[in-house]
Amino acid sequence: MTKAVQTKSQKRQEARHAQILDAAAACFVKEGFHGTSMSKVAAEAKMSVGHIYHYFASKEEIILALVEREQEQTLVKVSEALTIPAEDLVEGFTERLSDSLCNHATPFQSILNHEILAEAQRNPKVAEKVYETDAMVREIFTKMFRERLGIEDCEARIEAMSAMFHGLGSRTQRNPNIDIDGLLPITREFLRQIFGK
Amino acid sequence: MTKAVQTKSQKRQEARHAQILDAAAACFVKEGFHGTSMSKVAAEAKMSVGHIYHYFASKEEIILALVEREQEQTLVKVSEALTIPAEDLVEGFTERLSDSLCNHATPFQSILNHEILAEAQRNPKVAEKVYETDAMVREIFTKMFRERLGIEDCEARIEAMSAMFHGLGSRTQRNPNIDIDGLLPITREFLRQIFGK
Repeated sequence: MTKAVQTKSQKRQEARHAQILDAAAACFVKEGFHGTSMSKVAAEAKMSVGHIYHYFASKEEIILALVEREQEQTLVKVSEALTIPAEDLVEGFTERLSDSLCNHATPFQSILNHEILAEAQRNPKVAEKVYETDAMVREIFTKMFRERLGIEDCEARIEAMSAMFHGLGSRTQRNPNIDIDGLLPITREFLRQIFGK
Repeated sequence: MTKAVQTKSQKRQEARHAQILDAAAACFVKEGFHGTSMSKVAAEAKMSVGHIYHYFASKEEIILALVEREQEQTLVKVSEALTIPAEDLVEGFTERLSDSLCNHATPFQSILNHEILAEAQRNPKVAEKVYETDAMVREIFTKMFRERLGIEDCEARIEAMSAMFHGLGSRTQRNPNIDIDGLLPITREFLRQIFGK
């Protein structure tokens, strides 16, 4: 097999991999991790069950791969914070909070997050991935606090900031009439406190 | 049927009702709403499937009754806030936040919350119940802000405070080594800002 052919086959493998994960995510969103079977994933992916098993040995493997993919996307998004100049941090994060409030209103992503967090408490392997992602996110924010703001002791600040991000996200699910614009001044004030600005 | 007999039968009915909801909650925590069937609920409750159907016409009815029971418990807990004197609100809420952080570390309640919020985004009837609970909670807090703190325009404050409560709860699920005591000063400062103290 030549290198070019290998690459083509690898690309096809990756595309199939992504296709299965997309189908699995769609199933999990519709019927939960526990309401989804490998045959349902296969039907959604328009592939045979045997073909699915060629890529993933079990539903657990699919779940773990999906959590890993979510991890990669989260890290890309969080790393963008490192490109914000120190003087723009309060405004940059206020904007991100507002964006994330609008995004959390998308049921697909939010159901998937609930499924992952519920499953993390049932399955230690999923929990490990969730802990790992969060540790990586905290590391990025620690770098930001130390290098951009000169704040060494930032653990509690990062916890409170992360809580506010996750918590505001869940507000749209409990109050469909939430006044996002009305929240901006109070979150801006909160971020000033967190960033010591 | 005499009144005494009726009461006894009502009590038995209520006990059976609670027994089914407890069993259903245990199943949902283990296998999610969608991984749970009426026969699994029956096995967990040590009752026949026919007996379960005598109390609930469908799994959806069980889910809605469970969300209602959660609603009642939430309202009892939140109403306690109305008994805190104005000058003790910051400390009282800091303590409650710290307690809620410890409680969220209990997988049972936290999985159930994730299941409910995920299902609310699939099933409009569940969503209605979640919205209704949140509206009632906001009403209690509005009363608290107006009567205790003389703050009329409190919508954004209540949203930010609720976000912090929910968000800190989810932190224990992402960071098992969270330093709860280290978080107290920063949450106290946040609550001072929210309560205008």
